[in-house]
Amino acid sequence: MADLSTCLPLTRASVIEAHKIIEPLVHLTPVLTNKTLTQLASTPQDANSLVGTKWEGRTPAQPVLRLWFKCENFQRIGAFKSRGAFYAIERLKLEPGWIENGGKEKGVVTHSSGNHAQALSLAARESGIPAHIIMPSVSRPNKVAATKGYGAKVYHSGSTSTEREAVAAQVVSDTGARLVPPYDHPDIMLGQGTMGLEFQHQVREQLPKGLDCIMTPCGGGGMLSGVALSCEGTGIRVFGSEPEFDGADDGRRGFEAGKRIESVNSLTIADGLRTPVGVHPWSVIYERKLVSGMFAVSEEQILQATKLVFERFKLVIEPSAAVPLATALFNEDFRGLAEKEAGETGWDLGLVFSGGNIAMDGLTQLFAV
Amino acid sequence: MADLSTCLPLTRASVIEAHKIIEPLVHLTPVLTNKTLTQLASTPQDANSLVGTKWEGRTPAQPVLRLWFKCENFQRIGAFKSRGAFYAIERLKLEPGWIENGGKEKGVVTHSSGNHAQALSLAARESGIPAHIIMPSVSRPNKVAATKGYGAKVYHSGSTSTEREAVAAQVVSDTGARLVPPYDHPDIMLGQGTMGLEFQHQVREQLPKGLDCIMTPCGGGGMLSGVALSCEGTGIRVFGSEPEFDGADDGRRGFEAGKRIESVNSLTIADGLRTPVGVHPWSVIYERKLVSGMFAVSEEQILQATKLVFERFKLVIEPSAAVPLATALFNEDFRGLAEKEAGETGWDLGLVFSGGNIAMDGLTQLFAV
Repeated sequence: MADLSTCLPLTRASVIEAHKIIEPLVHLTPVLTNKTLTQLASTPQDANSLVGTKWEGRTPAQPVLRLWFKCENFQRIGAFKSRGAFYAIERLKLEPGWIENGGKEKGVVTHSSGNHAQALSLAARESGIPAHIIMPSVSRPNKVAATKGYGAKVYHSGSTSTEREAVAAQVVSDTGARLVPPYDHPDIMLGQGTMGLEFQHQVREQLPKGLDCIMTPCGGGGMLSGVALSCEGTGIRVFGSEPEFDGADDGRRGFEAGKRIESVNSLTIADGLRTPVGVHPWSVIYERKLVSGMFAVSEEQILQATKLVFERFKLVIEPSAAVPLATALFNEDFRGLAEKEAGETGWDLGLVFSGGNIAMDGLTQLFAV
Repeated sequence: MADLSTCLPLTRASVIEAHKIIEPLVHLTPVLTNKTLTQLASTPQDANSLVGTKWEGRTPAQPVLRLWFKCENFQRIGAFKSRGAFYAIERLKLEPGWIENGGKEKGVVTHSSGNHAQALSLAARESGIPAHIIMPSVSRPNKVAATKGYGAKVYHSGSTSTEREAVAAQVVSDTGARLVPPYDHPDIMLGQGTMGLEFQHQVREQLPKGLDCIMTPCGGGGMLSGVALSCEGTGIRVFGSEPEFDGADDGRRGFEAGKRIESVNSLTIADGLRTPVGVHPWSVIYERKLVSGMFAVSEEQILQATKLVFERFKLVIEPSAAVPLATALFNEDFRGLAEKEAGETGWDLGLVFSGGNIAMDGLTQLFAV
């Protein structure tokens, strides 16, 4: 990763700079709408569906929500992670001395079993740079094959973060490759934030007043913080959404406690969101108050939203990508807020479909009856 | 259905007229491309994959195919059938005497467990006309619920065509409703053909020379014949594709025999393609030679194509919609023809994703390991 001293400041202007650099390298993914989902979001939940939740007995909220979806499931490698990875590589190439000192031959390294591994492998390959990827030995064979398919050298490690980091450190020491972390770095945040600029622009092409709010999933917070930066000063409010299972809602809990939660150990089905919010993202999300609220949803709600997108929208998204829609449809705190603040006028709410990388066998397992 | 004497002639000009009428009523569905699938289509199959097929021992063909996809899975009700149904209703309303004789109160009737039932129900409802739908009593509850959701009155029947037609005749006799068949009528053919006009136009916006060929799935032949009419005189060649399982390739066999096959009894997973080609479609497809060839694929190839679209394209399509892609990827007769006729220049080949109506539980059953 480029040295922190070389990073642009965390501002909307820097996101615009990042966008100029990666625009030719990534897809301008479409922004789509769906009548059925918009109608569902604007219909109060059945009071019975609140039984057993903390909202039991409350009158279901009646927000007016017009939904817009940024389809990063159509992004290169099937997820938004390409944005940050391509930008990180471009920044590295600009770092004084990196190329001169053989950086392009030494390569880049990361530990990931998911979309970041594939994104970094692709971005590195397109610049002719070797990628060293550490994956837990329990990773699905198709994920390992996909990563190798992008030309990366794959190393296996144990599943804990300590084990993965040890292997990564060894690879760095053996090869001199530069570590590119999945989210906790300004370049990654600025890269992911570029989707926020496009989202704003694409909606304004159809609706001059533009979006009122954007909600993204939140795992390590790279995307959420980047999108928040892209909205700074625009009047667009930004929300984050997380799985609540097993404490994966560390961002929400951190908001409540006024302090970043440093570790998470969750096996939520939203497997892209099992990580705690990083230090740099947290500074934007919480300390600079660029995110207005954090919300969490249950595993069942995530599955239900994934299925709705599949059956009604005809789009394949991974469960992590369904978390914002699940929040808009099922979280009464969010829905009550929307009703209270937006009233009958309602909100034009942008939701990010962050990725679509789920194998058919993974899907059939998730939904097996 | 409007009386045959009132139908426009089966020409490209009539498809253009039909398009003017239904344009405000249906979606202009997107035309998408996908690098991975285009690359796969332009790569010879592994010779081993031909073992056990009639092409065993042949050198795999090396066609150059650039694929374009017309995404009717995003059409209203999730399938192209809306086009024919809306057009049929509009034509009925124009039939001299139909409204005056209480046609709008008597309504329309059809027997279908699939997309035509939902399409007709929707189109009828939007004109304030009752729809009577006969569905086999073994239909999936979600299909029955969806049809009722569009305001239709659902009647149950046995599964054979004789049983369904008996119930339909009874409903016609009881209500005076007009029968709207799913494919064997000029209005339905002209309505479905409108997708062909859009496809031609949308590709030319990106590629001035336009498409070389279009391939659609073929069940009853309404879509295939309509698209063939939309291409008449344009130089664009049209192909049909079918499942071969259990004799569902009646169109292909009819081409070989020089005679329409009048009945089919197949339980192919491509459940929209279990019907024989109708009389009116056959006149266009075969007798007028507006379709250049018919091809068939196996159940396994259909599943594989469905899965590729799901995993690589992030789109949900029903198995019937995967049949043209399966043909382009796996049928050596088609691939050999493309290699021979298009050579190194290759073909810009348009494939129709005809629909996306598969429930999550249906999908998990299809792909259960």
